[in-house]
Amino acid sequence: MSKEKIVLAYSGGLDTSVILKWLQTHYNYDVITVCVDVGQEEDLEEVYQKALNTGAIKAYTADVTKEFITDYVYPTLKAGAIYEDDYLLGTSFARPLMGKVLVEIAEKEGAVGIAHGCTGKGNDQVRFETTVKALNPHLKIIAPWRTWDLKSREDCIDFATEHGIPIPVTKKDIYSRDRNIWHLSHEGGNLEDPWNEHEQSIYKMTTPPEQAPDEPTYVEIEFEAGIPVAVDGEKLDPVTMLKKLNKIGGANGVGVIDIVENRLVGMKSRGVYETPGGTLLFEAHKILEKLTLDRMTLSFKKTVAEKYAQMVYDGLWFTPLKDALDKFVDSTQETVTGKVKLKLYKGSCMNAGSSSPNSLYNEEFVTFGEDEVYNQYDAEGFINLFSLPLKIRAIMNEKKSQ
Amino acid sequence: MSKEKIVLAYSGGLDTSVILKWLQTHYNYDVITVCVDVGQEEDLEEVYQKALNTGAIKAYTADVTKEFITDYVYPTLKAGAIYEDDYLLGTSFARPLMGKVLVEIAEKEGAVGIAHGCTGKGNDQVRFETTVKALNPHLKIIAPWRTWDLKSREDCIDFATEHGIPIPVTKKDIYSRDRNIWHLSHEGGNLEDPWNEHEQSIYKMTTPPEQAPDEPTYVEIEFEAGIPVAVDGEKLDPVTMLKKLNKIGGANGVGVIDIVENRLVGMKSRGVYETPGGTLLFEAHKILEKLTLDRMTLSFKKTVAEKYAQMVYDGLWFTPLKDALDKFVDSTQETVTGKVKLKLYKGSCMNAGSSSPNSLYNEEFVTFGEDEVYNQYDAEGFINLFSLPLKIRAIMNEKKSQ
Amino acid sequence: MSKEKIVLAYSGGLDTSVILKWLQTHYNYDVITVCVDVGQEEDLEEVYQKALNTGAIKAYTADVTKEFITDYVYPTLKAGAIYEDDYLLGTSFARPLMGKVLVEIAEKEGAVGIAHGCTGKGNDQVRFETTVKALNPHLKIIAPWRTWDLKSREDCIDFATEHGIPIPVTKKDIYSRDRNIWHLSHEGGNLEDPWNEHEQSIYKMTTPPEQAPDEPTYVEIEFEAGIPVAVDGEKLDPVTMLKKLNKIGGANGVGVIDIVENRLVGMKSRGVYETPGGTLLFEAHKILEKLTLDRMTLSFKKTVAEKYAQMVYDGLWFTPLKDALDKFVDSTQETVTGKVKLKLYKGSCMNAGSSSPNSLYNEEFVTFGEDEVYNQYDAEGFINLFSLPLKIRAIMNEKKSQ
Amino acid sequence: MSKEKIVLAYSGGLDTSVILKWLQTHYNYDVITVCVDVGQEEDLEEVYQKALNTGAIKAYTADVTKEFITDYVYPTLKAGAIYEDDYLLGTSFARPLMGKVLVEIAEKEGAVGIAHGCTGKGNDQVRFETTVKALNPHLKIIAPWRTWDLKSREDCIDFATEHGIPIPVTKKDIYSRDRNIWHLSHEGGNLEDPWNEHEQSIYKMTTPPEQAPDEPTYVEIEFEAGIPVAVDGEKLDPVTMLKKLNKIGGANGVGVIDIVENRLVGMKSRGVYETPGGTLLFEAHKILEKLTLDRMTLSFKKTVAEKYAQMVYDGLWFTPLKDALDKFVDSTQETVTGKVKLKLYKGSCMNAGSSSPNSLYNEEFVTFGEDEVYNQYDAEGFINLFSLPLKIRAIMNEKKSQ
Repeated sequence: MSKEKIVLAYSGGLDTSVILKWLQTHYNYDVITVCVDVGQEEDLEEVYQKALNTGAIKAYTADVTKEFITDYVYPTLKAGAIYEDDYLLGTSFARPLMGKVLVEIAEKEGAVGIAHGCTGKGNDQVRFETTVKALNPHLKIIAPWRTWDLKSREDCIDFATEHGIPIPVTKKDIYSRDRNIWHLSHEGGNLEDPWNEHEQSIYKMTTPPEQAPDEPTYVEIEFEAGIPVAVDGEKLDPVTMLKKLNKIGGANGVGVIDIVENRLVGMKSRGVYETPGGTLLFEAHKILEKLTLDRMTLSFKKTVAEKYAQMVYDGLWFTPLKDALDKFVDSTQETVTGKVKLKLYKGSCMNAGSSSPNSLYNEEFVTFGEDEVYNQYDAEGFINLFSLPLKIRAIMNEKKSQ
Repeated sequence: MSKEKIVLAYSGGLDTSVILKWLQTHYNYDVITVCVDVGQEEDLEEVYQKALNTGAIKAYTADVTKEFITDYVYPTLKAGAIYEDDYLLGTSFARPLMGKVLVEIAEKEGAVGIAHGCTGKGNDQVRFETTVKALNPHLKIIAPWRTWDLKSREDCIDFATEHGIPIPVTKKDIYSRDRNIWHLSHEGGNLEDPWNEHEQSIYKMTTPPEQAPDEPTYVEIEFEAGIPVAVDGEKLDPVTMLKKLNKIGGANGVGVIDIVENRLVGMKSRGVYETPGGTLLFEAHKILEKLTLDRMTLSFKKTVAEKYAQMVYDGLWFTPLKDALDKFVDSTQETVTGKVKLKLYKGSCMNAGSSSPNSLYNEEFVTFGEDEVYNQYDAEGFINLFSLPLKIRAIMNEKKSQ
Repeated sequence: MSKEKIVLAYSGGLDTSVILKWLQTHYNYDVITVCVDVGQEEDLEEVYQKALNTGAIKAYTADVTKEFITDYVYPTLKAGAIYEDDYLLGTSFARPLMGKVLVEIAEKEGAVGIAHGCTGKGNDQVRFETTVKALNPHLKIIAPWRTWDLKSREDCIDFATEHGIPIPVTKKDIYSRDRNIWHLSHEGGNLEDPWNEHEQSIYKMTTPPEQAPDEPTYVEIEFEAGIPVAVDGEKLDPVTMLKKLNKIGGANGVGVIDIVENRLVGMKSRGVYETPGGTLLFEAHKILEKLTLDRMTLSFKKTVAEKYAQMVYDGLWFTPLKDALDKFVDSTQETVTGKVKLKLYKGSCMNAGSSSPNSLYNEEFVTFGEDEVYNQYDAEGFINLFSLPLKIRAIMNEKKSQ
Repeated sequence: MSKEKIVLAYSGGLDTSVILKWLQTHYNYDVITVCVDVGQEEDLEEVYQKALNTGAIKAYTADVTKEFITDYVYPTLKAGAIYEDDYLLGTSFARPLMGKVLVEIAEKEGAVGIAHGCTGKGNDQVRFETTVKALNPHLKIIAPWRTWDLKSREDCIDFATEHGIPIPVTKKDIYSRDRNIWHLSHEGGNLEDPWNEHEQSIYKMTTPPEQAPDEPTYVEIEFEAGIPVAVDGEKLDPVTMLKKLNKIGGANGVGVIDIVENRLVGMKSRGVYETPGGTLLFEAHKILEKLTLDRMTLSFKKTVAEKYAQMVYDGLWFTPLKDALDKFVDSTQETVTGKVKLKLYKGSCMNAGSSSPNSLYNEEFVTFGEDEVYNQYDAEGFINLFSLPLKIRAIMNEKKSQ
């Protein structure tokens, strides 16, 4: 009788290599590895070989970088969703896509479940598992870090040695990192004390502001219906465009944040995030919305963005509410077409001009002086009714105090 | 029989000087001028003399800079209220205070009403008048720009010449400006086309990033219950502290925004705002809240902040809802005590560390590895229930499709 | 040279008849009347003749009752939008439709503007005029009640007598009413003192509960994607269905509210509203949503409903935000299919059962006792992480107090 | 060496009696029982004796009915917090108080933890445990239903027989119930199919509408700062007042709801709730707020109420956000003083009049006809600016389409 199959989210690192072997020895599973490429810039051929060498019966490499940008990044960008005021959700929205790929492969391969290497303290375990449950509630989920008796890197090394898994010769990075084409996160190490300033030496996508060019760089981003379509006048496909923006933003030291955030699982953590291109996109998109959306829409969209960000952070991507929010957002984006010039300089990013065929800014109305379109006398009536509740209340208080 | 008295918000400029005279000639009022000092750094003695010279029967100069900071700036800072994501409300929250001073003097002097020099296209007329109506609904309000037949600067100059009002020899600034200790705004001129980049030469509180020091500056701000109390370890009174922060922030090119905003009166306008010290305070306060407020509080407080910002912008300061929001905010601020280090460098402002006796960041819970306080196995139960609605829905869909 | 034409919203009553004549005499306009039929159950042929007799050059009668239900009532029902907790928006959402019809006819006839008989104190003037401005910003708007010198019913009667307009022989109803197929409102008379109980004799669509049948009536309403499609098993077109539900609800005394509400124009007013069929629809729809929507969606949809209601009330129907909210709502309604049984009895309306092919209620999960689908032990992990922020805070407080 | 002590939430029923014994036999604990009296109308002396007879080393009976009303019911009433549009939170807000009493007794007695009889599928386990963790994070929590091997009522009866625990002779009620002075809930039995109509025979606080008096009953409720202080002109203490209102409301068939609700633990359940007096209080309070709160406050308070309700439902009573929401609410309630007349009739409850010294309803402003206080012409200016964004957008669209 053939063994049951399990699909493992595999990165090629020590942890998931140990898990690969542990799934075989502990559960007697046939393991199929999946390395989901969302632009993390690793040697995926090497990962592939390593999986097979470590005993996988089959190894997948799935390049979904473009889908990641168009189906996960862009909806979030259009929503203007930012978690806790700062975090551009770089790790968060990669997880549902990775989960979806895992489910698809599990179904195709007839696997009984899915395994991942997330720890029991983080958000990613939640994001993976909500995705799996939403897409296929019958798949088992195995999260070894929550259940096995390996409790530290030392335990893992021992296990690896015992089972002939090659151990990286490089000293373990003291930081825990996550990378994709959108961002790079750093946690752990000396960041664990929030009073410590982070060291710029950790940056991998960003030139420290102090070392950035002494002249400002200007970049012009063009949007159609809320989606970026061109940079500096050149139409680019999503992957090329984001790489280009990463390069421009990163070179000018733009897009680093250093925050303490609230994890879904009830604790705070501290992280440094690099999102050079993403920061330019969010900034430019916001500027364009200010030109093209009316006040009420802009204001209510913030309520939607707050909910959207929380849902993305919490792994609630494949839900009816998320779908409905997308419908709202897409409707608001119909007129978010135009271009924005940004000035980048040693870590700062400044609006240097915006224009749109759908601009609701109307110079005629604003200009001081006589005009046809606006009767200043209207303001008196407006103010009188706008402030009527205050007046009625003042009269009520007066009568009462008499 | 004595004439009726009117109280005029007086700045000493051409416009309000013309209004002073016009109130006398057009309405036959005795005019009492009030120059409210909120740190706009003008020669107030000169303004005082000019008022009397232009025919005021009495001229007040009211220095309320400290009250401005403690009673208007700090509540807004604690609320984290920012209008349309960027604007730190510098002009907005000065208006209710100015209106309040005008009402108090009108009542003391037995005046029949209040006059101001705001145009009929802006927000400030609303903010003044809502304040007056809320505090004394019986006072008349006169807004000459909405009613008289002077339609341009040229008309004003003609009127001034005719009535012997001294005309400033300096060429009229092409920008319309508002200044107080918190901020300086620029509107008009070439800003009226949103595609134009603003010129750094307009800055008055800020060194352009390109000319800022080549070395970063660090500043440490200490808060007690949401209120800043010390800078770089030195306890300072509110006015001294804000001036110091303006100097530090301004010298490093920090705190300039360039935005298109939605006015309450239905049109968009474009402005450049300098808020050097205020930007440091908002940034530091946000960082400290991330350390000391729990997730739910932080999230709901954003809903409150959005409403708060809109109310301040709209001149709804003296309202029951604003009072109730303040009570909410004050309650959240009880634990917002601690210090934040900021790194300022050529226009950017980066978190360089935070600490608090009330920190909810707990290293013990976060650290990877074995621990006493957190049982990773709990995560499985958490995820199972957290994602149960998704699973139930998936099962429902499955049954339905069978 | 031919006269300019104006389109008048005409009801056939004394007021709009006087306005018709006044537009001719005061402005020298050719007047085209439009009577928009939204199910107000008046003799529209009589209104048509009266318009021509009073001097209209042309008289339109536009029956848009079905469009009213499908394009205005149903979107609002799906949104669950209720103004200030109680008001089912009966007058509010008729106005944009009426405004739209007026604009269409004005454009077709080449009229220069639109006139209406709303007073300067109510919401309806706003709703009409926002609609006109959104759909055709070039049309003039004439609102005689705000500008002419007729200040009372007596003035109108004098004017009518003078100009040969027939005056209704019936004594003027002391209540001000608005009626359409959805509802009937009553204002004025002894309702103007909120302490007075309203008299049941004012009801026109409703049997007072005391006179309703002594046996309960059951009614079953079926929905597809949030829209009612059948009553008691019978598929009905929208107009027939609403008439039937009005009859059933009205006969059982259901659907009367008596409220003080906040008008957009800054004052409170008091009204009694009859919405018999509408109340059944809103109640049944809510019950079905509880069965078919998940918790998050239900909760956020309330935020949307609150905004939606305010926008409908304020006449902001033809706006981008309203469109975007509709998109959100429609997405949530995809699974709101099923049927609801209501028990009606002497003014009360009780859920008597609901079912749906998309029900998210799953008896298996709820039932007490051993089960396959739910592991009670999961609850411990869930609670431990759900309450972790409270625990961390308690530990922080403890440490601090030591 | 002495045994460790545990505090058990004890009701005297079969379940908690079995738990009492199980804690002794399974853990070797000394058990201290606590029966918290929140007005559930049981024979508490009998419960006390039964606890001692079943082996408790000490038995507490804590009557906190008054504290329940003043510290838990009233804040929620003032907030207007209703869960999912209908549920008046009767069970929810009793739990934190019960948890608090348990913690206090555990601390006083030096117990190591707390045990309760809630199942692993419901909300109450969460509400108890969040309370314990917030108030004393060091106490152990034992929830036998989640861990032991007794899986059904039959298992419990066997265990009881084996350990000499008296088994109730009455047949087990098929419904699961929770009762206190505020409400009575029913779950289970034939309610488990949402299509079934509930049977009126289950009511214990309410006369079925069909059997209620044939004449309406009027009741007048007086509030001071949002808190009910008198009924029909008679000042009453909280407990007496609520009992009286329960009697009046119940006799008229008022206050029953039948809903499907979303539990915190991820599933839907169906319940019938009787809240006769509470329904009158919520209804009257709402009516009085409509008279005394301005539009903005009323609207934003709904956002607060939604969050408040969810927090109460979820057991998040002892949290900083809940405290802050209370501060907001209390501020809004300062003027919610006055009286409301309700007409009760066979299940319905109708506003029959309201009045307040702080009423913001001002007849002068509303009355049709000439007036001093309101200039109808102001409406034109108001509408022009209010609708300006719509007009600007229409112009933009027009230009674009040319």
